Formats: sequence, structure tokens, C-alpha cells
Amino acid sequence: MENKYISPFKPRKIIKVKSSGFDIYTYCAGFKKFKDDLLIIVFEKPADIAYLFTKSSTPSASVIWNKNYHKIKKCKILIVNSGNANSYTGAAGLSAIKKYVNFAIQTFNSTKDEIFVSSTGIIGEQLNPNLIINKLKLVKKSKTKNLFNAAKSIMTTDTFPKLAQETVSIRRKKIKIYGIAKGSGMIAPNMGTMLSYIFIDASLKKNILNHLLKENIENSFNSISVDGDMSTNDTVVLFSTGKNILKKINKGDKVYKIISAGLNKIMLNLAKQIVSDGEGITKLIEVNLINAKNKIQAKKIAFSIAESLLNKTAVYGEDPNWGRIIMAIGKTREKINQDNISLSFGNNILIKNGKIKNNININKLNLYMKNKIIKINLDLKIGKYNRTVWSSDLSNQYIKINAEYST
Amino acid sequence: MENKYISPFKPRKIIKVKSSGFDIYTYCAGFKKFKDDLLIIVFEKPADIAYLFTKSSTPSASVIWNKNYHKIKKCKILIVNSGNANSYTGAAGLSAIKKYVNFAIQTFNSTKDEIFVSSTGIIGEQLNPNLIINKLKLVKKSKTKNLFNAAKSIMTTDTFPKLAQETVSIRRKKIKIYGIAKGSGMIAPNMGTMLSYIFIDASLKKNILNHLLKENIENSFNSISVDGDMSTNDTVVLFSTGKNILKKINKGDKVYKIISAGLNKIMLNLAKQIVSDGEGITKLIEVNLINAKNKIQAKKIAFSIAESLLNKTAVYGEDPNWGRIIMAIGKTREKINQDNISLSFGNNILIKNGKIKNNININKLNLYMKNKIIKINLDLKIGKYNRTVWSSDLSNQYIKINAEYST
Repeated sequence: MENKYISPFKPRKIIKVKSSGFDIYTYCAGFKKFKDDLLIIVFEKPADIAYLFTKSSTPSASVIWNKNYHKIKKCKILIVNSGNANSYTGAAGLSAIKKYVNFAIQTFNSTKDEIFVSSTGIIGEQLNPNLIINKLKLVKKSKTKNLFNAAKSIMTTDTFPKLAQETVSIRRKKIKIYGIAKGSGMIAPNMGTMLSYIFIDASLKKNILNHLLKENIENSFNSISVDGDMSTNDTVVLFSTGKNILKKINKGDKVYKIISAGLNKIMLNLAKQIVSDGEGITKLIEVNLINAKNKIQAKKIAFSIAESLLNKTAVYGEDPNWGRIIMAIGKTREKINQDNISLSFGNNILIKNGKIKNNININKLNLYMKNKIIKINLDLKIGKYNRTVWSSDLSNQYIKINAEYST
Repeated sequence: MENKYISPFKPRKIIKVKSSGFDIYTYCAGFKKFKDDLLIIVFEKPADIAYLFTKSSTPSASVIWNKNYHKIKKCKILIVNSGNANSYTGAAGLSAIKKYVNFAIQTFNSTKDEIFVSSTGIIGEQLNPNLIINKLKLVKKSKTKNLFNAAKSIMTTDTFPKLAQETVSIRRKKIKIYGIAKGSGMIAPNMGTMLSYIFIDASLKKNILNHLLKENIENSFNSISVDGDMSTNDTVVLFSTGKNILKKINKGDKVYKIISAGLNKIMLNLAKQIVSDGEGITKLIEVNLINAKNKIQAKKIAFSIAESLLNKTAVYGEDPNWGRIIMAIGKTREKINQDNISLSFGNNILIKNGKIKNNININKLNLYMKNKIIKINLDLKIGKYNRTVWSSDLSNQYIKINAEYST
């Protein structure tokens, strides 16, 4: 399907991000027509990595492969294809991976526990490994250090490539943290339908990378939703390129915290880019929930509001129909005190301490609803737990995109 | 908003249902313009009743009133308004009910534990009790026995009134069971956004009515979903009109079973009418899940498929994109064996024992997708629990209806 629709959040200027410590190869392998659909990244020296996968109970062959067949210790080669998810492909799907991984082992003089694979695209079609092998034969020509091409080659229904970059200072060294992501539909919490690869230009061991990734996943990739549909292929990987040698880092120490803060910015930035490219998006919804009783309640209610079809369509229609927020709170069945909540859209107060505001300035409120970003602020006043989550509105374009995807 | 869209499932011929044992009054009270929006039912002698309400934790004033303020023992008067949900109206909402209930007590020489109230419509607007009181003053003129008017007066975004009627034979007596329902959006399991009032022309005590209602709710009103959004006002009430005097009935005996079977038909019929009038519906989705491990798994997976936005839009687009079924199974995180399931759309087999069918007849499959009712049949083969649920597809009309509702 040709995507004529473009997200209004598409950045006017794409930032330039250059890799260090690895080469990037992108190809049109034939999963898609006329577009790059294959990304191969080759590290100069094997990179320490940490990764998280979809919690789906019908994971793709690529997720099963990485998790069960090849416990990746250090990564030398990353192979990602778009256009075919290699999902619900059974033993044949795993055997296809085996074929192209074996070829990569020979090509790069590598070992099988150094190769990480991902796929994204249509579910239920067998993946032809030769499409990847044919391009592996060409590797070592046409390499680049530019992550723009990498970000572009992993797109599916995305309307723009997603890149982010931060620099943190550690002992006078400038250390770059940068990454790419893809995702537009089949996005739900628990890592939405997304792939993301993030690189830290520093020597960090697997256990530290693991802590960093887990610590920052909840308020970034686990705080976004487009359609509440969790994918079979979701993957986020954190690589240490080894470029800057750092003294031993422990979880929680000063250097760790600096890196974690920088990583958090990247992960949140990429997560927000994904939801800002949510299929058919016209407006970004930000739900700021404060003073919930506990973490689970905060998450449940925030997502219930963000994912409610009636709220999403109301935002699309620029309709300040806040009754639907009340409905979305209630449908979680979480015990709250509805007679004591406060609710505002942006700084337009609608309910204060359980009382509907008398003299709401309707003109100002309607004007607010015309913004591209709609902030829904809810104070439950029963505890001290906060949560912010993001979603996209539900538009005619969403229907159009998804009613026509596979045909 | 004027509803120009009409569900393709609107019955060509509305069945005629006549009440016995109660009179029906309908009015345009002014919650809506130019349309009946008030239903008053007056029983000849107080009716035994059983009822179930929304599980929402932000219930409406009418639900709170019935549940906490007036434990209804026998019902003499039923008052239902549409156009204003009396939800998120706090103490003022309860006090509005008190006013019109007090007026009804005088009018009908009744007591406060004999009056049952319901509201449906916009959330968060104060209900003016005088609109109801003004019409209570007129009661005893213009009554009818025709339930068509009753069904019509409780509609909101419904595109057709919903009625059903069955007759069961007990000891050579013909006993009628009949009812009305409303609901179109804000429909989710746990009784969707719906009101339903069902009448049994027999003398049945409250405890038997309770059993009958609870026994039949799960595979009827709790098996439908339009948008997964649970309402603040859902209510279903079962009335015994007392018309046919039956000997004492016990739960589980022969007569009980006959009545329960008849009631089940009515409840399922009304539930399916509600989902068939799901906002913007073009196709009805029926998910038949068999051989799940347990009840909860069966329900979770069936609803995950039925409610997935990606599935609903695919059905709308007549696109047999079964990969999204696999996704919807997985996103429940329920443990299943994906390599052993069977899946078909109607009688078009897609997966058999975990193997994708080689020679799928694409033309036949595409033709099947053009039907008005799409049956998704999934066999998990890990247990013996079955569940059937229904939902509507997700169309441009849904967006249109809901982007414009309150303005």
C-alpha cells in the first residue's frame, strides 16, 4: 500500500546521526518493492548488548530465535528486515533464520551467538532467506555511517524515520547515546509494535546494560499506545559500541546515573516519535495522571483514558467531551472517589475537587481542542503515584490505513 | 446530532410486542428535541424484579440511587429518560432523582422502594427533574400497551428500536417473555452501555428472578462489545408481571429450565441486536473460540480478537488479514500452543493443526469477507472451554458518529 497520508508530527528537519564503532548497510532485498527493507549492522568489535522482547504469547520466529536458540552474548552482526514479520511461520520460519544466519557466520567469520535478528511486517507469510542471503553477498560494498538510512530501512507503515541523539559528559569525555526506532500501528504498552536499536559509545558490560534498559523502559516505550494491539515482534536492543573506555561502573553510581538520564531522554524521544507517527494520527494525546493509590492503578487508569476509542475519536473531533474520561476511569473498576477528582484539558479546568466548574470558558476550551497536542490532566487525590502516557487520536485515516494493509 | 447513518442490520419488519400487566407512557420531555426521551411504565400490581448494574467504578446517579438509596423490593413504577445520563452529577444528580421520585410517589400513591430509575445519554450534565415531573403530571392520559414506543423512547445513538419476544409452554399454559433494549456505543463486556428491561408473564419470586438473570447474563449481554468502553449507566432488569400464576418453582427444576431457556433466547436476541446496531457497523463479527484451557482464557482470547482495532478495521476493509488474529491471541499473554491451533473464517480453513493451509482458495475467501456476518473460528486444542462473542467492525462511520456526539 502506498502511504499518501503523512503524520503532522513529521519533523521538518531530520537530525543527522553518525555511527561510530559499526558500519551500516541497507538494501532493497525484495520484501517490499522499490524500498530499502534490509538493514545489516556490522560492529568493529563484538558489542555488549541487552534486550527486551514482546510479552506476546504468540511471538515471531525472530523473537523465539534470539530468546531460545541463540542466547546472544556479544553482538557482531544485527540483521533486520521489514516487509515480512517472520511471525506465525513455525519451524519453517526458524529454519529460514538458520539459513541466513549460517551464511552471515561464514561471510563475517563470526559465531552463531554473535548474530541478532529482527523482522517486522506482515504476519503469516514464509520468509525467503535467499532474499537476505543475496544481499549478505554484497556486504562490504556501499557501507555508510549514517543512521538515517538505517532508520528508513526498518519502516513499515511509518511516515517518517525515527532517530534521536544525546551527548552526556563523563569525566570530561563526551559520550554519545543515539538510536533508531520504527513503529506506527500495532502499538500497545509492553513495548508496542516497535523495533528500536540504541547505541552507547562507551564500554558497558551486559549486566549494566540490562539495568539501564529495564530501568528506563517503563516510562518510555511502555508508556505509549496507538491501538492497544501488542505485536508479535517487538524488540528493543541496547548496544555498547565500546568506543569510550570507562572505569568499572556500578548500578546507581554517579556515572551510571548520568548515562541512565541520557538514555532515558533517547528512549522517551523515540517512544514519542513512534506515537506521534501513530497510524492516522492528527493529534497527540498526553494523559497526566497524578496522585493515584498505587503504580498499577496509575497505569491502568492512564491507559484506559489514552486507549478509549470514545476519547480518541472525541479528540479527533476536537470535542471536549470529558464525560468519556469519567467513563474511562470507571471502566477500569479501580476504586477511586469520583466526588473528589480534578480534571483539566491543558489549563482549562473542567472539574475541581469533584465539582464541575460553573463558568467554563467554552470558546477558550474549544480553541484548546484545536491544538496538535492535547493534554488531559487528572488528579485522583487518593495517593502519591503519578503516570504520564501518550496515545494518538483515532481518525478516518487510521481506518483507511488498516482496512487496506495486506491487500 | 442527526443520525443519517443506519445499521445494515436494522430489521425490515419490527415485531409487535404487547405488554400485559403494565401500561406504557412515552413522552418528549425535552432532554432531546422533537423525540420521545422519557419512558414511564406503571405496573398494575407491584412486580417482583431482579437487576444487574454496570461494574464501573464511576457509576451514574441513577445506578447509585437504585443500589444504595432505594433497595427496590417490588417495582410499581419504572422511569427511564434518554438524552441525559445523570452521570458525574454528584449530590445534585441524586437530589434531582429524589425530586421526581417523590412526585411519582404522590402521583401513583406508591412508596419509595417501588420506583426504579434509569438514565442514558450525555455524561456530566445536570438533570433537570422538572422535565420529568411535567410529564408525570400528564400520566394516565395517552397510555399504550405497545412496547415499540417504549423501545424507541430509550434510544440514543441507536439506529433502530430493539424488541424481542418468546413464548414458552408450561403445564399447557403459554407464557410470554419479552423485552426491550438500547445500546449502540460505549458497549463492552460487563454489560456494555446498555439498558434492557425484560418481562416474564408469570409469578416468579425475586430469588428465582435473580438466578435466572445471573445464569443468562454471561453468554448474552456479557458476550458483546462495540468499542470496549464500559458505560457508567448499564442496567438490565427482569420483571415478573405476575400474569400467570405458577406453582412454586425451584432453581434447576423442569419449569425453571424452560423459563431460563426462553429467557436466554430473549437476552441473546437483544444483545445481538445491540451489537448489530454498534456505532458505524457495516459487518457483525462472531468469534467462536473452542477448546481453551479454562473459562477465563476463553473469554480473554475471544474478546481480544473481537475488540482488536486492527481486526475490526480489517473486517471493515473485507481483508482476510488473519495474522492479526494471531497477534490478538498473543497480546492476551495467555499460554497456548501456537503450533497446534486451527483457524477458519466461515468454512474457509486458514490454519489446521498449526500449519498454514497451502492451497487457500483466495477468491472464495475474498468472497466470504463480503458477507455481512463474519465468523472467526479458532480452535486452541488445549482444553474444553468454549466461548462465542460478538462485536462490530470499525468503520469511518464510527469515527464520524463519535467525533461529533456532544457538539
